[in-house]
Amino acid sequence: MSLADKIAQLNMPVVLPGEPGSSAGATPADQERYARGGFQHQNLVLGPGGGFFGLVNESLFGSFDPEQPKTPKEQAERHNALQKLALASEHRIPLLQISEGTHGSIGPGSTIFPEGLGLGATWSPELVGHVYGVVGAEARAVGIHAISTITAELNRDPRYGRAIWSFSEDPYLTSRYVEALVPAAQADLHTGAVVSLCTFPAESPNVGGLEGSSIELGERELRNVHLPPWRAGSAAGSLMTEAGEQTIDGIPVHGSPKYLTEVLRDELGFRGVVIANGFETMITDRVATTPAQAGALALDAGIDIALAWHAAFLTGLVEAVRTGAIDQTLIDRAVRRILTLKERLGLFENPYADPARAQAVVNQPAHRRIALQAARESMTLLRNEGGLLPLHHRRIAVIGPNADDARNLLGEYSAWPTFHAVPTILDRLKATGRQITHAKGCATTGTDRSGVAAAVKAAKNADVAVVVLGEEVKGGYFNPGRTNGELADIASLDLTGVQQELLEAVHHTGTPVVLVLVNGRPLSVTWAAEHIPAILEAWLPGEQGAQAVADVLTGAVDPSGRLPITVPRSVGQLPMYYNSKGARARAGTYVDIPSTPLYPFGHGLSYTSFALSNVRLSADRITGTGRTEIRAEVRNTGQRTGTAVVQLYVTDDESSVVVPEIQLRGFAKVSLAPGAHASIKIPVRADDLALIDAGLDRVVEPGTFTLRVGTSAAALPHTLQLTVI
Amino acid sequence: MSLADKIAQLNMPVVLPGEPGSSAGATPADQERYARGGFQHQNLVLGPGGGFFGLVNESLFGSFDPEQPKTPKEQAERHNALQKLALASEHRIPLLQISEGTHGSIGPGSTIFPEGLGLGATWSPELVGHVYGVVGAEARAVGIHAISTITAELNRDPRYGRAIWSFSEDPYLTSRYVEALVPAAQADLHTGAVVSLCTFPAESPNVGGLEGSSIELGERELRNVHLPPWRAGSAAGSLMTEAGEQTIDGIPVHGSPKYLTEVLRDELGFRGVVIANGFETMITDRVATTPAQAGALALDAGIDIALAWHAAFLTGLVEAVRTGAIDQTLIDRAVRRILTLKERLGLFENPYADPARAQAVVNQPAHRRIALQAARESMTLLRNEGGLLPLHHRRIAVIGPNADDARNLLGEYSAWPTFHAVPTILDRLKATGRQITHAKGCATTGTDRSGVAAAVKAAKNADVAVVVLGEEVKGGYFNPGRTNGELADIASLDLTGVQQELLEAVHHTGTPVVLVLVNGRPLSVTWAAEHIPAILEAWLPGEQGAQAVADVLTGAVDPSGRLPITVPRSVGQLPMYYNSKGARARAGTYVDIPSTPLYPFGHGLSYTSFALSNVRLSADRITGTGRTEIRAEVRNTGQRTGTAVVQLYVTDDESSVVVPEIQLRGFAKVSLAPGAHASIKIPVRADDLALIDAGLDRVVEPGTFTLRVGTSAAALPHTLQLTVI
Repeated sequence: MSLADKIAQLNMPVVLPGEPGSSAGATPADQERYARGGFQHQNLVLGPGGGFFGLVNESLFGSFDPEQPKTPKEQAERHNALQKLALASEHRIPLLQISEGTHGSIGPGSTIFPEGLGLGATWSPELVGHVYGVVGAEARAVGIHAISTITAELNRDPRYGRAIWSFSEDPYLTSRYVEALVPAAQADLHTGAVVSLCTFPAESPNVGGLEGSSIELGERELRNVHLPPWRAGSAAGSLMTEAGEQTIDGIPVHGSPKYLTEVLRDELGFRGVVIANGFETMITDRVATTPAQAGALALDAGIDIALAWHAAFLTGLVEAVRTGAIDQTLIDRAVRRILTLKERLGLFENPYADPARAQAVVNQPAHRRIALQAARESMTLLRNEGGLLPLHHRRIAVIGPNADDARNLLGEYSAWPTFHAVPTILDRLKATGRQITHAKGCATTGTDRSGVAAAVKAAKNADVAVVVLGEEVKGGYFNPGRTNGELADIASLDLTGVQQELLEAVHHTGTPVVLVLVNGRPLSVTWAAEHIPAILEAWLPGEQGAQAVADVLTGAVDPSGRLPITVPRSVGQLPMYYNSKGARARAGTYVDIPSTPLYPFGHGLSYTSFALSNVRLSADRITGTGRTEIRAEVRNTGQRTGTAVVQLYVTDDESSVVVPEIQLRGFAKVSLAPGAHASIKIPVRADDLALIDAGLDRVVEPGTFTLRVGTSAAALPHTLQLTVI
Repeated sequence: MSLADKIAQLNMPVVLPGEPGSSAGATPADQERYARGGFQHQNLVLGPGGGFFGLVNESLFGSFDPEQPKTPKEQAERHNALQKLALASEHRIPLLQISEGTHGSIGPGSTIFPEGLGLGATWSPELVGHVYGVVGAEARAVGIHAISTITAELNRDPRYGRAIWSFSEDPYLTSRYVEALVPAAQADLHTGAVVSLCTFPAESPNVGGLEGSSIELGERELRNVHLPPWRAGSAAGSLMTEAGEQTIDGIPVHGSPKYLTEVLRDELGFRGVVIANGFETMITDRVATTPAQAGALALDAGIDIALAWHAAFLTGLVEAVRTGAIDQTLIDRAVRRILTLKERLGLFENPYADPARAQAVVNQPAHRRIALQAARESMTLLRNEGGLLPLHHRRIAVIGPNADDARNLLGEYSAWPTFHAVPTILDRLKATGRQITHAKGCATTGTDRSGVAAAVKAAKNADVAVVVLGEEVKGGYFNPGRTNGELADIASLDLTGVQQELLEAVHHTGTPVVLVLVNGRPLSVTWAAEHIPAILEAWLPGEQGAQAVADVLTGAVDPSGRLPITVPRSVGQLPMYYNSKGARARAGTYVDIPSTPLYPFGHGLSYTSFALSNVRLSADRITGTGRTEIRAEVRNTGQRTGTAVVQLYVTDDESSVVVPEIQLRGFAKVSLAPGAHASIKIPVRADDLALIDAGLDRVVEPGTFTLRVGTSAAALPHTLQLTVI
C-alpha cells in the first residue's frame, strides 16, 4: 500500500454538514468518491478511505438529505453500494461503518432503549447485555460495524451535557454494565458489531461542568474511580478518546503515550483501535504548533483513527514521514490495527449486509420486548407518601410538557421522526381506561405561563394530577432549545422554564399530585421532595417508555429502579457522589442547606416491603487472591409482588492511603411474590478490596474490611467483618 | 530534658471552651498549671508546656471570662505572669504564645485591618507589608510571638468559609503579598512576631466547598497554582498544615513526609516549625488506628507542634518511643525546631512584654492611618453607569443590614466589643453633612420583611439610596447566624435572606440606587449587575472601613481596588478562576447562563480614565535565567485624580504540557492627577515563565511567550512577544 493509501485508512470522516469531515462526505457523490478512492486534499490524492463515522446519523437528526434510506432494507442497500465501490479499488479493503449506538442503533427503524442513567437504574447487567446485544445486531444487520458512544465514562458532574450517556456515577456498577454489554454486542462479530466505548479515560469531572474544559484530578482518584470500567470493557473492539481539548492535570490525552498506550494497552489490556475526535485541539492548547506536529504526537501516543478529516492526518502526516519527523512504523501500526479489526469483523469475506434480513431483524417484537423490560426496570420511585401510588383514581389530569412528548422520551441520538410509532405517556394512560383530561401547562423552557390556568382547571376536576416535567433533549445538538445532551451543559439542576411554577400551581389546587420526571440528569427537586407526595423518576425511557410509566403508575409493574447517581439538593453541592472520602461525610452542613443529598445513591422505593435477614459470610478470612460470599434471606413482607435490590458497600478499616468511606462492591436483585422469600448470594473477591497505593500501584492490603449491606448508600443496617490475610 | 519535658514542648493547647485542649487551659488556674509544669494526662505528668495557641482569643470572641485582660497593658501583664511561671521551672524554657493575626493582632484594642480579599484588592504588596508589620508589632507588644492564620492559601472555591482569609484566587498576586508581609512582620524578631502561614499546601479546592472535605487535585496543578505562595513565604517562622481531615488525592497531608518534608523543606526551603491542628483525624480517615500510630506518622512526616491536646502527642507518643515504634530523634528534631524558634525570637534573653510600651504601641494613630489607607485602597468599584458615583446628592437614604453594623465590617477573628470606637457606614455618611435618612430594611439572613416598607419610604424621599448589603461574619464560629467564615460554608453565592427583595423594592421606587457590598466572598449579584447603576465592593474593610466607604462614595478618594478573585454569575459555574486551561475559555456557554464571569479577575473602575501607550519590552529575547522589563506610559485622561492598576498576563505560545491560557505575572499601580502621566516598568524574569513539566519538574522552556497588558483578565489590548532562547 502506498503512503496515501495507508493514510486514507486512518481517516473516517464525519459527514454531518458543517463538521470538519463534511467536505469528504457531505453529499452522496462525495461519499462515493471517498469510498472509491481519489479524494483530493491539497496536493494529496488519497486511496479509498477507511470508512465513515455517522453516515447513518444524518438522515435521523434533521432530514438533510431527503434521499437518505428510510427503511432497514434501504439502509443496508446504501451501505452495500458504498462497500462495492471500495472493494472495486486496488487493494479491495472493505469500509468500516461506525455510527452512534448510545441506546439503540441509529439506523432507520432501530429499537430505541432507555438512555444512560435509565439503563443504569436497572441494576441488571444481564438486561443491559441483552440491550446492547440487540443494538449490535440491529446495527450489523444494516451494515454498521461499530456502535459508538457506549459510555464506560462515569457521570461525576451532572451539569455536563455529555454525561447524559453515562450509566452511573459509580465505577463498580458501571463496570458490571460494561463487562456485560461488550461480550453481548460482540458475541458473534459476523452478526454483531464491535463496541466503541466512550470516552477514555474521563471527561465528566471537568472544571465547571463545561464540555471540553480541562480535568484537574489526581492520578490516584483517576485510577481508583475512572479506570475500572475501562478494565471491565477492555475487550471492546474500539474506543474513543476524549473529545475536544481536554487535558488531565495538564497532560493532553490525545498526545499522551502514557494514557493511550501504557495505561490503556499495557495495563488495562485493551487491544482494539483508538478513535480520536479532534486531536488538532493540541494546537489550540499550544502543545503543538502545526497539524503535522499534532498528527505525529497523536500517532505516537497511540491514536489510530481520526473521525474528522484532519489536516494532521493528511498532508501534514505525509510531510512528517518524508522529513523523518515521524516514523512510518507508527502509521503502519495504526493501519494494522484497523485492518485487524476489519478482519475480525469478517469484512474481507463477507463485506455486505443482507437487505432482506435487515428488514426482518430491526425492531422485531423480541427487541421491542427487551426495550419495554428495560424501561420498566429503569423506573425509580423516589417518594410515595401515604401510598398515593399505584393510582386507584378514576379521574386523572395528565399535565406537563413531557406528558404528550414522545421525542423527549427517546433521548439524544435517535431518529426523528421515528420509523415506527412511539406513544406518549398521555397515550398510554388513556389506554388504561381511566378518565383522562390533559393540559400541557407550559413548555420545558421559556416563560410562557399561558397554559397554567388550564392545567389548574384540569387538576381541580380530577381525583389525581400526574404532572410530567423534566428536560428537553430532543434532536441532539441540532436543537438549540435543549437543556441536556452534547453541547448542552447547564449551571443549575433546578426545573427549567416555568415548570416549578406549574407544579406549585397544580399542587395548590389540593388535588393529590404525582410528579413524573423525564430527564437525563438528576434534578434538584427539593421543593417537590417536601410537598409532592409521589415522585417517579422515569429517566429517558426510550420507545417503550410511555408504557413502562403507565405500568408503574397503575401498579401493573413494581418500580424496581434504584438511583445510579446521587440526587443533590442544589447545584451548589457539586461535585457530589456517594463514594467521596469520609471527610466530606463528616464535614459540617452548609449554612443554607444540609450537606447531604436530596436522594442518596442506590435509593428507590417499591410498592411492597422486604425483610433482609441472616446476613452472613461464607468465609470471613480470605487471602489476597481469595474470594468469599455474602449470603442472606430476602422476604417480601408486603402485599404485592415486587423487586428488591440488595446492595453491598465496603469500608476499608485501615489503609495506607485514604480511600472512599464506602464503595459499592456487589448487589443482588430479586423479584418476589407476596410472602415469598429467596436466598441471595453476593460474591466478594479480595480483588474488589484493592486500593491504589502511594506508589500508584493497585494492591490488596491485608487487614479487616467492614462490609455493609442494605438498600442504598445511606441505608446500610447490616455489617459484617472480613479479614484479608 | 526528660521525654515528658520534650513532649510538653510539642503541645500548645487551644484554650477555647469545648476545644480539644480545653482541659489544659480553659481556666486561668489550668493555664498556670500548664505553664508551670505538672499537668497530668493519664499516667503522664508533663513538664512546662511549649506555649499556648489562642490564649488571647477567648476574651474576644465571647467574653467567656470576665476577668480577661481588657487593655494592651493588662494583656502584657497576663502573658508575663504565665511566662514567669514557665521560667521558674527546671529548664527555664520560655512559653511561645501563638494567636490569630489574620487581619490584625487579636489582643485587646489591636488595630483591625481589611480581611482577606479586601487586602487582596489593594494590589499593593508594600501596603500589605505595612499592615502585617503593624500586626506583628502590636502582637509582640502584648507578648504574642507568632501571628497565625495569615493565608498563603488561595481562594479557589468561595463556597468554602475558611477561604474568607485568602487574599486572592491567583498564585502570583498572593505570592507578592506573602513575600512582602513575612519580612515586614519578622523584620526584627525582638519587636515583631513570626508569621504562621496558613494552610499548607492547600485547602480551598475541596470537594463541594466543605470544610474538611478531601481535595482531588493533580500534582501538576497543585505545584503550578498552589505552591508558589509557599515558596514566596518560605522565610515564615511557622506554618500550619491543613486542618481537619483533608487529603490530597488520597494522601493524608498530616502523615506525608513527601509534603511536609520533601516539598516543604527540601524544595521550598522552609525552615520554621510546622503546626498541626487535628492530625488525629488520620484515625477517622483510617490510615492510623491508634493515637500512638497517628503521632508517629505525624512526627515522621514533619509535624512539630500539636495545637490541641492530642493523645497522639502524649501517652501514645511516650509508649511509641518506649516500644521503639518511633525513633526518639524525631521528637528531638521537633523540639529542636521549637527551641530554635524561641531563640530566634529572643525569648531566652528577653521573655517579657513591656506593659507600658504595649499600651503605647497598640492602635497608635500611625497604625490607624495604615488601616484607613488599606481600607481605601481595597474599595473596588464594579459598576458605575452614568457616573452616578461619586455622590453629588443632597438627600441620601442609607438602607440595608450592613449600613449600621460595625461588627460585620471587622470580619472574623476580631474583638467584640472592640476596645476602641468603630464607626458604621451610616455614621461616616452622616459626618459628610448630607441629609441622611436611615432604614435597615431587613437582616442579612432570615425572612423578616417587616422593615422593607420603611426602607422603600426612605428611598422615595431621597435623591439617592445607598443600600448596604452583604454577609454576616461577626463573631467567628460562635455566631450560629453567620454566612461566611470558619465552619460557615455555603451552597449559594446569591444574597442571603431577603436582601435581594429589599434591593428590588428600593430599586422600584425609581430613586437611583448605589449598592455597597460588605462581604468576604464574591457574590453572584447578577440581577444588580443589570439593574443597579452603581456597585461598590467594600469587602470586610476593618475598623476604618466605614470612613473608606464614605470617602469613595463622596469622591474624596478614587476607588483603586481591583478584583483579586473572579465574581461568578452563579454558584453553578464553580470552580471558576481566570487562570483555567484555555479549554474552559473556548468551551461553549451553559444553556441557562453564559460561561463567562459576572466580573472578571482584575476588574475595578476608577472615577477618572487612563490611557496606556508606548507599551514595549526593554529586551525581547532573554535566556532561561534572564530578565526583561515591560515599559509603558500611563496618562490620566480624565478630570479627577485617580489610580491605575496596569496588569501583565503571560501566554505560553508552545509548551510540553497544557498550562493556563493566561497567568498574571506582573502589575504596576500608579496614582495620577488629571492630565498627569508616568512611566511604568514591570519586570519579567524568565523564571516567571516556568511550567511544571511532564516529569513534575519546574522548568523554563525555550520559545516564545505572548505578554498581554491591560486592566483586567478580560481586557488585555496590548500584546508583546518575548522569546526565551
